[in-house]
Amino acid sequence: MDKFYYIGIDIGGTKIKIGVVDNLGRVYHRESIITAENLNEDVVVKNLAAIVNRLQKTFPDIYGVGIGCAGLISHTEGIVIFSPNIGWRNFQLVPKLKALTGLKVVLDNDANAAAWGTFFLNYSGKYSYLMCVALGTGIGGGLILDGCLYRGANGAAGEIGHMTFIPDGPECSCGNKGCIEIYSGTKGILRSAQAKVANNPKSFILKFLEDEKITPKSISLAAEAGDKGAQAIWEETGERLGTAFASVINLLNLQAIHITGGLSLAQEWLEPSINRTIRKRAFDTPADVVDIIFGKQKKDMGLIGSGLLVLGKYQQDLL
Amino acid sequence: MDKFYYIGIDIGGTKIKIGVVDNLGRVYHRESIITAENLNEDVVVKNLAAIVNRLQKTFPDIYGVGIGCAGLISHTEGIVIFSPNIGWRNFQLVPKLKALTGLKVVLDNDANAAAWGTFFLNYSGKYSYLMCVALGTGIGGGLILDGCLYRGANGAAGEIGHMTFIPDGPECSCGNKGCIEIYSGTKGILRSAQAKVANNPKSFILKFLEDEKITPKSISLAAEAGDKGAQAIWEETGERLGTAFASVINLLNLQAIHITGGLSLAQEWLEPSINRTIRKRAFDTPADVVDIIFGKQKKDMGLIGSGLLVLGKYQQDLL
Repeated sequence: MDKFYYIGIDIGGTKIKIGVVDNLGRVYHRESIITAENLNEDVVVKNLAAIVNRLQKTFPDIYGVGIGCAGLISHTEGIVIFSPNIGWRNFQLVPKLKALTGLKVVLDNDANAAAWGTFFLNYSGKYSYLMCVALGTGIGGGLILDGCLYRGANGAAGEIGHMTFIPDGPECSCGNKGCIEIYSGTKGILRSAQAKVANNPKSFILKFLEDEKITPKSISLAAEAGDKGAQAIWEETGERLGTAFASVINLLNLQAIHITGGLSLAQEWLEPSINRTIRKRAFDTPADVVDIIFGKQKKDMGLIGSGLLVLGKYQQDLL
Repeated sequence: MDKFYYIGIDIGGTKIKIGVVDNLGRVYHRESIITAENLNEDVVVKNLAAIVNRLQKTFPDIYGVGIGCAGLISHTEGIVIFSPNIGWRNFQLVPKLKALTGLKVVLDNDANAAAWGTFFLNYSGKYSYLMCVALGTGIGGGLILDGCLYRGANGAAGEIGHMTFIPDGPECSCGNKGCIEIYSGTKGILRSAQAKVANNPKSFILKFLEDEKITPKSISLAAEAGDKGAQAIWEETGERLGTAFASVINLLNLQAIHITGGLSLAQEWLEPSINRTIRKRAFDTPADVVDIIFGKQKKDMGLIGSGLLVLGKYQQDLL
């Protein structure tokens, strides 16, 4: 495939990043505007159109604009249905920006954009059935099924973090009880660490505080230094994640689970524990074909994935 | 679409059913042969080819042959990779039957065939994201995503019954612990009933024994007669199923879950409990759009769904 240039727009609660990317994932230009100064729909469309039109002068062969935005999106209509952090409701973003720029414009959820970019740049041609999982405070997900971004009936698919792990577990911010995110997200891990430290004041975890606080990094450094309690926290986290992954593998028969996010830095302990648990819990037929891959989240993936959304939608036109 | 005739072949552990069906799900002819007399690969291919060739004389405009078979199937190659009950391994069923009949032949897993038939006859044009769940001794599943039968990387997708419900629960026949099938399949329900009866010898469940045994029907009849304990068993079963469904809904953002199987006869108690649990546990966005539908399994659905597999694969040719 030839080289094509795209404008990626990554709309977050703090900043709106705008960049020029190509289909190899290279970034040629980046700038940003402040979200708080662009809450008004007309203002943000006018500002984005001005930037896009300026960039078209420097990069005359721009093929289209891809936008990733947090919240509930209608990708077919190009509308932000509801973005709680920004406050937009039924914002006709794509039709308005199209009208002011004359370019192809596509819009999707930001997690979907990142999953699509990760798939397109790393796994396209290798895998067709992939789940991307971001392990951090939350556990986010994105699905590629049959080689396409999977959005579900109204764009809400991929919430692996809110699958129930323990039905009568503690309440989750989502309203459910016992979500896997509560147990294997940052808060759950820190809760386990507090318990370890309370039982064992000599725990190495206390040697590696950051700003006098226990962080996931404290636990990783303690585990590296040989602290059994710290190692056990990661192993248990791996077992929990592996249990949730095994359920998804039995349901979806994936070829790969791509893991990123802050907690993925504990790969040394998480990886064997996740793999062991999947082999123990999933059927052999799907377990045989699934690869668990710890990947670093590429810098600017929000921007790149957003830009590449154009390629997902208009791929046919380019071939 | 015009009317097309298909031969459906439904290969089970006891019988191999053969029939002529059309794209409206009508059955024009049915016959069967004994599986135990057809274990040898050459014998079964020869016998099936003879029947297919004979049926072609009566129904000259047969478009193709669709086969559903229990076990692990490669639908792309038309091979039975492994069918534990029948003992076939790497059986080149499609290439061999094609050679002897000159017809289009397709093969898939029997659960996939039934899910495809259910979707095609009831929901095609209405839903594109559907899970079929058969509630019985086992809990089987089949997925339709983006309007197509979803098979996953190597045909093993759809095993909702073996998603983990309680990570440290009892061992399941699949090797995992705490699968939802253990809790909400027939055995789990009978276990709950035994416990109720042990605690309450006046339980109505004991009034409705079949062959002196407690069966799911005993529990349903007792519940109908007002037995609170029996009603509680179904409500708890609904909560468990609803919890598993909520996880799938958060992951896949489905439009419908179609429930069949022996246990679905307890719809009166299961349905409100499943719906309540989904509303409580799943995100609003996907919960708002999902319909929980109790359907009767159409007679001969194995046969019909198998025949209609031809339509799934060669649909383009017909339009």
